[in-house]
Amino acid sequence: MGIHVARFKVGDEARWGWVRQEQVVPIPGRYSSLAEFLGEGAARARALVLEKVSEAIPLAEVELLAPVTAPCNVICQGQNYRSHMLEVGQDPDAKDFNQFFRKASSSLTSNTSNILKPARVRMLDYEIELGLVIGRRISGPVRVERERLHEFIAGLVICNDVSARCLQLAEGQWHKAKSFRTFCPVGPYVYLIDQEDIARLMNLRLVLSVNGEVRQDASTGEMVYPPEETLTELSEIMDLFPGDLLLTGTPSGVAAGRNMSKAARKVGKLISVFLSDKTLGKLILKSGNTSAYLKDGDVIRASISSPDGLIHLGTQENRIVAQTPATEGQA
Amino acid sequence: MGIHVARFKVGDEARWGWVRQEQVVPIPGRYSSLAEFLGEGAARARALVLEKVSEAIPLAEVELLAPVTAPCNVICQGQNYRSHMLEVGQDPDAKDFNQFFRKASSSLTSNTSNILKPARVRMLDYEIELGLVIGRRISGPVRVERERLHEFIAGLVICNDVSARCLQLAEGQWHKAKSFRTFCPVGPYVYLIDQEDIARLMNLRLVLSVNGEVRQDASTGEMVYPPEETLTELSEIMDLFPGDLLLTGTPSGVAAGRNMSKAARKVGKLISVFLSDKTLGKLILKSGNTSAYLKDGDVIRASISSPDGLIHLGTQENRIVAQTPATEGQA
Repeated sequence: MGIHVARFKVGDEARWGWVRQEQVVPIPGRYSSLAEFLGEGAARARALVLEKVSEAIPLAEVELLAPVTAPCNVICQGQNYRSHMLEVGQDPDAKDFNQFFRKASSSLTSNTSNILKPARVRMLDYEIELGLVIGRRISGPVRVERERLHEFIAGLVICNDVSARCLQLAEGQWHKAKSFRTFCPVGPYVYLIDQEDIARLMNLRLVLSVNGEVRQDASTGEMVYPPEETLTELSEIMDLFPGDLLLTGTPSGVAAGRNMSKAARKVGKLISVFLSDKTLGKLILKSGNTSAYLKDGDVIRASISSPDGLIHLGTQENRIVAQTPATEGQA
Repeated sequence: MGIHVARFKVGDEARWGWVRQEQVVPIPGRYSSLAEFLGEGAARARALVLEKVSEAIPLAEVELLAPVTAPCNVICQGQNYRSHMLEVGQDPDAKDFNQFFRKASSSLTSNTSNILKPARVRMLDYEIELGLVIGRRISGPVRVERERLHEFIAGLVICNDVSARCLQLAEGQWHKAKSFRTFCPVGPYVYLIDQEDIARLMNLRLVLSVNGEVRQDASTGEMVYPPEETLTELSEIMDLFPGDLLLTGTPSGVAAGRNMSKAARKVGKLISVFLSDKTLGKLILKSGNTSAYLKDGDVIRASISSPDGLIHLGTQENRIVAQTPATEGQA
């Protein structure tokens, strides 16, 4: 099985640690980025497992930092879970392409940071996603097979693809709506995988709740395009680097879906091929209430694990803090 | 006035040089990226102007490399010229947002490199754009005024936002269609600007031809969202770094527009609010011929300069080389 690594704060410095039994064992060496850590640091972390550990800090005493570090490429799959497509009025059976968009890496934040809701954003939404950390440089087409995924993916991490749904639906291209600072909580850990973990990759359970109410609960088995197909296609298009992050899409249960009436959803699905995103967005906006969107003080909890408990990626707990034009100016 | 700098090949190494009078004057120091060059390297380049230059290489004898280096953020504005919106059936007067998307930085290539047309791409298009090189770290909201643009923008560069129009129209999100390797010729130079250049920034002429036929010929003055507004909004969303690249949109004359009949354009503009990109894409696909798209052997020339000739960003000349599934596998 793999091991859990975290990035944590020691004074003004960021250190990396191996996490086991509610303790952090500092990993020798200094690594300024996840990319840098993934070489020697990851090897040292794995070596620690076999050593007698002398130094261990209780997990509760350290401040965890985002284990995926900026700058890096954050690449996202759009509408990659059947249930999510259906809830927003799309037809999964009509989809014949793997949709990609980008989040700015400055949206990365830790698993306990506040999510800042910009004053201009009216419809703030959550999206739990399995994040794949790229483990090696890819600079040309490669055919990735599922059983060789561990050669390309260094680790797994929980991600929340926080989205300004109002901007996303009105503007068509999603980069802006998905990229505000703090819009991508990652962690608490990166789970460095072994080959034997691959068998569980498409059977991980994603659970997200808002103020204790479960909103998303699904399996990675529902993905339309699994990681090996996605990485194969990406390799044909662009370069990937160690420390890059691939978000693999979200299942149903997002606020946009919960606020859409059954009737609107049915209409949407039937005519999504002809309607513009803008018009479909208006349907989502106007059909039903908007109570499911995130507001100041809401707490999101997110976790990902395998049903047998052998893979567990920890828990995120992020609070929404609404900004005003005045507080935004202070950043 | 500003100065021209280029990146060029010496043996296996990349060096930076000051370009003047068809010669390259090597700039002291080694800089592995544009970001690294923009600090000390740019200052040294400016200092050279006042010195007696001993070493100068004829420009014709060096191989220029892309002066914007990967990895970096390549951020693009969508539909930012009125004439381009009209030609693809959009209503510029109805637009009330600045649209952003991303290109993978591995799409960057030099001003004379071949543009590789992937086998799967049927509709390959060109888009001349003014590229702005970010000069300083921006990590929070800033109000950028036009007269202070030189404090944020280090330089100007010609870009070609090469686009797989068939994928762009079919898939909705544009990242994939714009990101294939070689889909972003940049250069030949970065023109490092001074404050006095700002007065000419919105009066630059962009000209692009295919096989000698002029296809695009317009002024930057036509932009819907000028650079100061764009940078102000971007600063509210995401971090920018020295060496990042902002593509400011393309004017009319792209193949997608040239192949669209007047009738279809009118229909498109009238109903673009209701039609999906997919349906609008079908209109573009089916209305008229597809002869304007790029094919194997086509040569694109692109240049940007001010009418008074005081700013000139050089010329790109890139040839289309169609790939087959077999040749793509060799990359």
